[in-house]
Amino acid sequence: MTKKMNILMFSGEYDKALAALILANSAKEIDMDVTIFFAFWGLLLVRDPNSMTGEDKTAYEKMFANMTPKHIEELPLSKMNFAGIGKKMLLGMMEESDSPKLKDFLMGAINKGVNLKACKLSCEIMGFKEEELLKEVKIVTAEEYLVDAMDSNIQLFI
Amino acid sequence: MTKKMNILMFSGEYDKALAALILANSAKEIDMDVTIFFAFWGLLLVRDPNSMTGEDKTAYEKMFANMTPKHIEELPLSKMNFAGIGKKMLLGMMEESDSPKLKDFLMGAINKGVNLKACKLSCEIMGFKEEELLKEVKIVTAEEYLVDAMDSNIQLFI
Amino acid sequence: MTKKMNILMFSGEYDKALAALILANSAKEIDMDVTIFFAFWGLLLVRDPNSMTGEDKTAYEKMFANMTPKHIEELPLSKMNFAGIGKKMLLGMMEESDSPKLKDFLMGAINKGVNLKACKLSCEIMGFKEEELLKEVKIVTAEEYLVDAMDSNIQLFI
Repeated sequence: MTKKMNILMFSGEYDKALAALILANSAKEIDMDVTIFFAFWGLLLVRDPNSMTGEDKTAYEKMFANMTPKHIEELPLSKMNFAGIGKKMLLGMMEESDSPKLKDFLMGAINKGVNLKACKLSCEIMGFKEEELLKEVKIVTAEEYLVDAMDSNIQLFI
Repeated sequence: MTKKMNILMFSGEYDKALAALILANSAKEIDMDVTIFFAFWGLLLVRDPNSMTGEDKTAYEKMFANMTPKHIEELPLSKMNFAGIGKKMLLGMMEESDSPKLKDFLMGAINKGVNLKACKLSCEIMGFKEEELLKEVKIVTAEEYLVDAMDSNIQLFI
Repeated sequence: MTKKMNILMFSGEYDKALAALILANSAKEIDMDVTIFFAFWGLLLVRDPNSMTGEDKTAYEKMFANMTPKHIEELPLSKMNFAGIGKKMLLGMMEESDSPKLKDFLMGAINKGVNLKACKLSCEIMGFKEEELLKEVKIVTAEEYLVDAMDSNIQLFI
C-alpha cells in the first residue's frame, strides 16, 4: 500500500521551508503520497506574488500583508539571520554545492504532485484570500488536516 | 477504534500554543482522544496564575518564575514580536475574525476532556510544583509520554 | 515487536537538543529502537571538537565552521538567551536538580545504542566532512531517513 507523509508547515522561515520541501521531494522520489498543510507563518510559502489584493482587507490585514515577505525566496532564516549575513552565507554555500534554490524545491514539489493545502482559520485570521495563494493550493479545515494526518505513516510539525 | 493524537508541547509562544490548542479542540470535535504533554517552555501554558509560590524554590527558580509570563495570554509570539507590535496585530486580526482567544481554546480543550500532562524532569529543573499548575494537569515521566505517543495515530512536537 | 522512535533533529539549540536526547535516552530505557537524523543546525550537535579541518572547504564553509559552536555544550538556547543569562540560569537550575548535562545525555544515547545519522545534503551544503563528525555518526540520504521514519511508531521533527 502507498505510504503517506503529512507535514504541517507552521513556520515561515527559509531553512525550515527548505527542510520541508526537500523531504516532500524525496518522499515523492520513493513513491510516497505527500500532503503539506500550510498554517500561520507557513502560509507565506504559498503566496502568489502576482496576486496580491488590498480589497476586503482590514487595516491590520493590510499591514500584515505588506510587512511580510511576498516571495518564498525572501523568507528569513530561523537562526543566524543577523542583518541577513547568515542567509547570504547559506545561499552561497548552496550555490557552491550546486543545490537547487527554495523556489526550485517548491516547483519540484508541485510538479511531482505534492498535495498543497492551506489552513482555513489561519487564512481568515491573517486575511489571505484563496486567490492570493498559488493556484495549486486548496483551503481546508483543521479537521480535514487531522483526517489526512491520522492515516499517514509520517506526520511532522515544522 | 478511537483515533489518538499526542502533542509534545515544548514551546512557550503564543502562536505555537494557538496552533496546538486549535488542533486539540478540532481533534475532540471529530472524537479523537487527545493528550498534550507540556515540557520545558510549554509548562508556561499551564501555570495557574493564582497559585504561585516562592516556597522551596532556589534563587534561580525564583528568578525564572518571576521573569517568565504568569498567564497564557502574556506569552510572546515566535516571530515578528518587535516590541509586541506583532502580537497586537495578531490579536487585532483574531478579534476582527471573531476568533476565540488563546485562553478560550485552553478552556475548550479542558472542557472537552483533552488529557493534560506535565513533564516531571522539566518541572524539577524549572522548579514548578504540581500546585503551581492548573489542577487538570498531571505530572508524568518521559517514559509515560513515550508509551502514550507510540500508540497514537498522530504525534507532533510543537 | 520492538517499538521504534525516529527524531529528525533540525535545530541546533541547547534546550531542543536536551529535549531530543532526554527522549532518546528514555526510549532506550523502555527498550525502544531509536534513530536520530541530524540535519541543518542539528549537525552542530554531532561535530567532533577534535577533528575540525579547513581542508577542501570554500570560504563560506570556513566562515560557517568558525562562526558556529564547536562543542555541544556551547549551543545557545532557543529562548531567553539574552547575553547568555538565560542559559546560565538553565544550567544553574539543572545543576541544583542534579540533572546530567547535555553532553552526558549525548554520551548516554551513544552508549545505549541510539542510531545516529547525518543528512547527506546538509553536510554537502554546510561543508561538513564525515571525519568532522563523531565517529558513531553515519551519513545517509533523505530517502533513507524517510524509509526509517515510515516504519517508526513515533516520528518527531525537533
